[in-house]
Amino acid sequence: MSKKVGVLLAGCGVYDGSEVQEAVLTMLFLDQANAEMIFMAPNTEQYHVIDHLSGTEMAEKRNVLVESARISRGNIKDLKDVQASDMDALIIPGGFGAAKNLSDFAINNVQAEVHPEVQRIITDMINSKKPVGALCIAPATLTKAIADKQPEVTIGNDLGTADAIEKMGGKHVACGVDQIHVDRANKIVTTPAYMLGPGTKDIAVGIEKLVAEVLAMA
Amino acid sequence: MSKKVGVLLAGCGVYDGSEVQEAVLTMLFLDQANAEMIFMAPNTEQYHVIDHLSGTEMAEKRNVLVESARISRGNIKDLKDVQASDMDALIIPGGFGAAKNLSDFAINNVQAEVHPEVQRIITDMINSKKPVGALCIAPATLTKAIADKQPEVTIGNDLGTADAIEKMGGKHVACGVDQIHVDRANKIVTTPAYMLGPGTKDIAVGIEKLVAEVLAMA
Repeated sequence: MSKKVGVLLAGCGVYDGSEVQEAVLTMLFLDQANAEMIFMAPNTEQYHVIDHLSGTEMAEKRNVLVESARISRGNIKDLKDVQASDMDALIIPGGFGAAKNLSDFAINNVQAEVHPEVQRIITDMINSKKPVGALCIAPATLTKAIADKQPEVTIGNDLGTADAIEKMGGKHVACGVDQIHVDRANKIVTTPAYMLGPGTKDIAVGIEKLVAEVLAMA
Repeated sequence: MSKKVGVLLAGCGVYDGSEVQEAVLTMLFLDQANAEMIFMAPNTEQYHVIDHLSGTEMAEKRNVLVESARISRGNIKDLKDVQASDMDALIIPGGFGAAKNLSDFAINNVQAEVHPEVQRIITDMINSKKPVGALCIAPATLTKAIADKQPEVTIGNDLGTADAIEKMGGKHVACGVDQIHVDRANKIVTTPAYMLGPGTKDIAVGIEKLVAEVLAMA
């Protein structure tokens, strides 16, 4: 029987949502492994909207769930309606949305608050001993959500972010973009993806390994 | 020396822009082949904005170039600033944006008009004997742009769309999602992608072949 894997999205676009390439590559490798995917996102307003051409903020409001649906072709659930019992594993792609909409780590750093529904699903997955994968900056939100478990994660080698992860209660391990870090005690798998890049083919290597390891532990 | 391949985007999201997965998989295979990618999109308002969760139209305006930048992480040019001489080949991912923003085929069918800058770049590429790849519904826009060349394309097996392509002056050849159709005279390569689907891993097979063939002809 195919494994059910949740994919937690945070909008659509690296600067205010999920990193589009990271999300699609996660989907590609899950689909190639015949996993069943359950897409989900919090039904909440984005922290802000960034013009991805100019890099500046736009005077607009967008909804995280509605924009995430652009990646999954409308096939997506409101996170509040998803339970840990619905799936065998969970993967969280990166992009600033993972640290602006799933938590506010990008704004408040170690003082970050995690979105309540994100907090719930991550905590329930970890407590159920089901594997959780996180890409790029998403491990920072993951760390904040389950700081009491002292998660061991990688976001690549950015010293400031690594330091913040340690201050929040996690352990950071430096890692290349073509590698994954595995916290066997907590069943957490992380890879730097676009925290290091530089390109699509480079991040694909680590993401393929992450998906394989998450499925192996599920 | 690496080949320079243009990727013509049409927004970000299957229902009103470029199909996100098709665009990212095109990028993955181009990058794995060490091609240099030049992203471009017309600097124009989208035909409309679709809420990808509900499928209904939203009372918003979005710009095709600005939204396309979400897929390419801001690395994108205004189509009007790109010439056929800048690149060795061009690929057009699908999604309704390819038939709503690059042309209005999705609305006006055989009476479609092609966006002037899209018309220019496609015509110049074909006249320069440089290969053009088109995915999903994009071959309909391509056919309208160069009807006088009697292009031979596939959009899968949708009878209505195939008929419209023939009425516009093209020749349609039915094709599976894991295959490509090659028009050697015009150097055009097409694959059905999400005109057939059903999933990410399925469209990836045809897209990988399309990218390889386009690069071989470039």
